[in-house]
Amino acid sequence: MKSKNFDDIPLRIIPLGGLGEVGKNMMVYEYNGQMLIVDAGLMFPENDMLGIDYIIPDFEYVVNNRDKVCGVVITHGHEDHTGAVPHLMEQISAPIYATPLTRGLLEAKLSRGGLLNRVQMCTVEANEEVEIGPFKVEFFHVCHSIPDGVGLAITTPAGMVIHTGDYKFDHTPVDNWPTDYAKLAEFSRRGVLALLADSTNADRAGWTPSERVIDSAFDDVFRESPGRIIVASFASLISRMQQVANAAERYNRKLSFVGTSMVDNARIARRLGYLDIPDELLVPVDQAVKMKPRDIVLMSTGTQGEPTSIMGRLSMGTNRQFDLITGDTIVLSSHPIPGNEESVYRTINRLFRRGANVIYERLAPVHVSGHASQEEMKLLIHLVRPKYFIPIHGELRHLRQHVRIAHQLGIPEENTAVIENGMVLEFTNCEMRMGERIPGGYVFVDGSSVGEVGPSVMREREILAQDGFVLVNLTLDRQSCRLRNEPEIITRGFIHEPDAEDLLAHTRQLVAETVNCTSNGKMRSDLEQSVKSFLYTKTKRRPMVFVSISQA
Amino acid sequence: MKSKNFDDIPLRIIPLGGLGEVGKNMMVYEYNGQMLIVDAGLMFPENDMLGIDYIIPDFEYVVNNRDKVCGVVITHGHEDHTGAVPHLMEQISAPIYATPLTRGLLEAKLSRGGLLNRVQMCTVEANEEVEIGPFKVEFFHVCHSIPDGVGLAITTPAGMVIHTGDYKFDHTPVDNWPTDYAKLAEFSRRGVLALLADSTNADRAGWTPSERVIDSAFDDVFRESPGRIIVASFASLISRMQQVANAAERYNRKLSFVGTSMVDNARIARRLGYLDIPDELLVPVDQAVKMKPRDIVLMSTGTQGEPTSIMGRLSMGTNRQFDLITGDTIVLSSHPIPGNEESVYRTINRLFRRGANVIYERLAPVHVSGHASQEEMKLLIHLVRPKYFIPIHGELRHLRQHVRIAHQLGIPEENTAVIENGMVLEFTNCEMRMGERIPGGYVFVDGSSVGEVGPSVMREREILAQDGFVLVNLTLDRQSCRLRNEPEIITRGFIHEPDAEDLLAHTRQLVAETVNCTSNGKMRSDLEQSVKSFLYTKTKRRPMVFVSISQA
Repeated sequence: MKSKNFDDIPLRIIPLGGLGEVGKNMMVYEYNGQMLIVDAGLMFPENDMLGIDYIIPDFEYVVNNRDKVCGVVITHGHEDHTGAVPHLMEQISAPIYATPLTRGLLEAKLSRGGLLNRVQMCTVEANEEVEIGPFKVEFFHVCHSIPDGVGLAITTPAGMVIHTGDYKFDHTPVDNWPTDYAKLAEFSRRGVLALLADSTNADRAGWTPSERVIDSAFDDVFRESPGRIIVASFASLISRMQQVANAAERYNRKLSFVGTSMVDNARIARRLGYLDIPDELLVPVDQAVKMKPRDIVLMSTGTQGEPTSIMGRLSMGTNRQFDLITGDTIVLSSHPIPGNEESVYRTINRLFRRGANVIYERLAPVHVSGHASQEEMKLLIHLVRPKYFIPIHGELRHLRQHVRIAHQLGIPEENTAVIENGMVLEFTNCEMRMGERIPGGYVFVDGSSVGEVGPSVMREREILAQDGFVLVNLTLDRQSCRLRNEPEIITRGFIHEPDAEDLLAHTRQLVAETVNCTSNGKMRSDLEQSVKSFLYTKTKRRPMVFVSISQA
Repeated sequence: MKSKNFDDIPLRIIPLGGLGEVGKNMMVYEYNGQMLIVDAGLMFPENDMLGIDYIIPDFEYVVNNRDKVCGVVITHGHEDHTGAVPHLMEQISAPIYATPLTRGLLEAKLSRGGLLNRVQMCTVEANEEVEIGPFKVEFFHVCHSIPDGVGLAITTPAGMVIHTGDYKFDHTPVDNWPTDYAKLAEFSRRGVLALLADSTNADRAGWTPSERVIDSAFDDVFRESPGRIIVASFASLISRMQQVANAAERYNRKLSFVGTSMVDNARIARRLGYLDIPDELLVPVDQAVKMKPRDIVLMSTGTQGEPTSIMGRLSMGTNRQFDLITGDTIVLSSHPIPGNEESVYRTINRLFRRGANVIYERLAPVHVSGHASQEEMKLLIHLVRPKYFIPIHGELRHLRQHVRIAHQLGIPEENTAVIENGMVLEFTNCEMRMGERIPGGYVFVDGSSVGEVGPSVMREREILAQDGFVLVNLTLDRQSCRLRNEPEIITRGFIHEPDAEDLLAHTRQLVAETVNCTSNGKMRSDLEQSVKSFLYTKTKRRPMVFVSISQA
């Protein structure tokens, strides 16, 4: 199959997102002038990314080489693997390959962006094999917290690379479809050049519990809850919907999905056969809230403490469709995304304060991770027996821990590589080397603009958020260059003005004095400087200061 | 001891901080017109408290009744129990009672604030009994992650109340001084009216591991680290200093404390005999960084990802005294405070990126909690056998979980109370009832001002942090009311101006058009409105907009 001249063509592996930081996964495989893209996710902003809606990978490299892209493969339907797909498909044209559920969720996303008819979608199934340009891609089933996830075996003349996507080795998954061990062993027999494996839980010892443990936790909740049950989870956790539906059936409650994304995803998953819920179990929310409390379970989003989510609104008594009532039990079937802990716990406290009983991960096993832990990672490496090992999907600390595991299992250090976004690996004649780095940063999405908000704007927001600003308006007499009236001072985010009349009066006085002893040319900067240092002396705060001078 | 007319005087228990939210603990006991204050802590701001330095309890109630305060008892030397003491002592005058180490740490704090000679300090010891106004206070030793912690038995004619402070039941504490079980049992024999117990870990099953487990984790680190070891922890974790010193001695390394608070606290603790470190083990940092890497261990603060801390600066290569070198091993002997996870993990990733090996809580038991877990909480209740049970020190979710534990142990529901800051409990004739609520909120400390920054300023900072602001300066001709020159537009935190020339040009044009068709009286508000909605249409963002008009 290999011809001599093919052998010298390198396979290039280029992570554009998800390596070294959380979220927003995106990988490019490049061979003989053609590119295969795997996933294109988004990441929600960190706490200090002020005002940003979300973050997508910097895929300028792909856009600059758009003619070379022969296909986009999406491994599963979670936002951190699909969220940037609409942005990507606005800029390139290539077919998307996905399994039926992933495709269904993607189509909903693309149609919201008005992109659906521009994009060619190809359905693939686990165990299928597709030629995409020079890449032979074999799809194998993996368990994750959403059904229909796949990993990829990507073969070129340079060799076979296994790309796991997100996975766990759940022996008793909700859909009874375990990860395809046999396939992994088969790849191993055929010889695997490199394994690229999910590192999310690399600092977690042991084996991630099966999704099944949630069933008995739900049993406890359903048995003991005197009133309504409200289960909050992610809209993309399709298997959690199935578990809630099953529990509802066992305990003679009707189920109602609340919120657009939850309702939409449930509809898509039911239509495609990934969610087995009889019609008579479901009731619309307006009917549900009129039923006897102990006959109903509601399922919604809002597990991350977002103030505008259903849980956020319930915690503050501002939800439109229904309010909390005595006897309500709320189950947070989720884990706080790092950085959200504070708002999650604040929401929990508020829900308690409004009379609900709240059950969350620390109190009962109502959530398990969808990612492999250390012992599963070891099993994967032993099953696949790759020559090279490259950890993917994780912050740098996870990648480092994951290669350490590979070393423990006998993979030599020089056959592993910890790479971050924008770092390029090249495989030629079965040898790995580092290629030249390409740009690989964030792109901020804020409002309708993509990328215009960069570090300098973020830095300004940071200063404004710290201490606000002070605006001084003054009008000078054209002849005398003296103040015509008292300077006007406007502040925002600096001080509560009614409490600070003294400070403001002194500032006006300082401005007047400075005007009188400054030459016209540098008056503006002199004034800004003296107001700044005066306010710092008085308050130990450093607001932005602007002076606007007009002459009359 | 009890006389008839005494019996009708209620004992009032008034939490001013630390109940219902994290941190900043403060409790008032009030009897017969006199007040005893227990602890006065601070809390670090949450992520959405923009620009705030820290938060202290709203103790206006105490200040308004300052003549009634007969004493302040501090249970141990951690910031969340001592941080507001300087603010409190500026406003009241009453003696402070504390054990030697707590007193030493407090004196350093008060002298930094220039308050030391204004405050009367009284040293107390565990097992001592002190009359403070009408309160007989018995101090009993408790284990916590700082030595010399005490709980209190507070007796008035209304009965005896046990106030645990922060505690754990560590059978093998670093200072070999376990919590005083016998004393607790003795109180129980004498009859305890109410138990007020630490709830921090109420959602944590089992028994908190002994501090001793850290020793063997340190052994692993010290044995395997090829170069320097840098242990980061809190400056107030005196027992952790002892453990690092012991490990340094076992592995023939010298120890150097880095950073003012670490150095100061180590000095105080050594002087008072709470830290047993021979002189010859210690070297100053400037000498340490010149020694062979494998002969030294450094200990510093900066475990919470603070950018200005030593760890923060090392992670960015901006530390003045020394930089990371190849082979460095960093141990984060700490747990991220909720809300800090993101910056902690980002710092860890950066330290890895700069070549260090980083060992943190998830990878090895280099930290344990200083608070009791559920099984310890049960033991405490069984030892003390109180009539009433009131959970303290915790968010609402912890308090709820803690009373649930008390119910499981047979304390009737009506004999428990979940109260939050400002809620008053009254005990009369051994009966508990809810009193009238008093104000109990936060006070923000920002720069040198205490309390001036309230919700409205915070809200402005939030808006500024989201989308920045836009400032339009224009000069009108006095006669014609037409623009004399092109409007000036200044933005901050909104958009990167060089990339947005088009948008700014259109905005200037819009301003010019609006000026031409608006009557002078409402020009400013008209302009602000139209600029706002124009910018929203174009960018889907909502900056603050200010228009300043002058005439010439």
